[in-house]
Amino acid sequence: MNVVPKLSMELHHPSRDEIELATVLHALSDPQRLQIVRLLATQDTAVPCGSIELGVTKSTATHHFRVLREAGVIQQTPTGTTKLTTLRRADLDARLPGLLDAVLGASPAVAATAAGATVG
Amino acid sequence: MNVVPKLSMELHHPSRDEIELATVLHALSDPQRLQIVRLLATQDTAVPCGSIELGVTKSTATHHFRVLREAGVIQQTPTGTTKLTTLRRADLDARLPGLLDAVLGASPAVAATAAGATVG
Repeated sequence: MNVVPKLSMELHHPSRDEIELATVLHALSDPQRLQIVRLLATQDTAVPCGSIELGVTKSTATHHFRVLREAGVIQQTPTGTTKLTTLRRADLDARLPGLLDAVLGASPAVAATAAGATVG
Repeated sequence: MNVVPKLSMELHHPSRDEIELATVLHALSDPQRLQIVRLLATQDTAVPCGSIELGVTKSTATHHFRVLREAGVIQQTPTGTTKLTTLRRADLDARLPGLLDAVLGASPAVAATAAGATVG
């Protein structure tokens, strides 16, 4: 008998308590991933990951989203052919108070904005 | 005529304005480097780098100190056979307000304390 795995479409997300400082810092230590986070921080609703233009190949972009998701920085929900993406601000603020604000508050010159991400 | 380079003993440190967010986050994204920073944050005076026990080889420790120094997180001053090491707290607080406090304020369970650095 074939059993279809119930969780086949679910992506791994660490729980709030599993979010680790060093892992989050690593996820945020790339200019393009910083751009994704900065952009998501300005959005009130979930963003299709494919609509975020990073100027890199699709596989590179997918890698960056996965690193952010597995660190607990973003939530990705598969929807149709895309993944709706949000920043896990409440979880990050609860687990690592002040960190996201400090990162988002860094002046543009400090934040290496060269990647220039935009919502397409 | 042989000219002894005047700067042969000087180590490169970025100026305050050269400190970049992504580079600092990368420097802080390693549990052992986090341990070094946490330990230096508790010291009122410069610490000989060789006195910080990380439980790793000397070359690995040297690598970690170099990554922190080149990111602008620590100042190292060659003195005799060692390097006196301090946290560049004022520069970090000026350039990336709130970041160091958020990192140092993370609870131990979140900060991956397994490396267990101590001043020997």
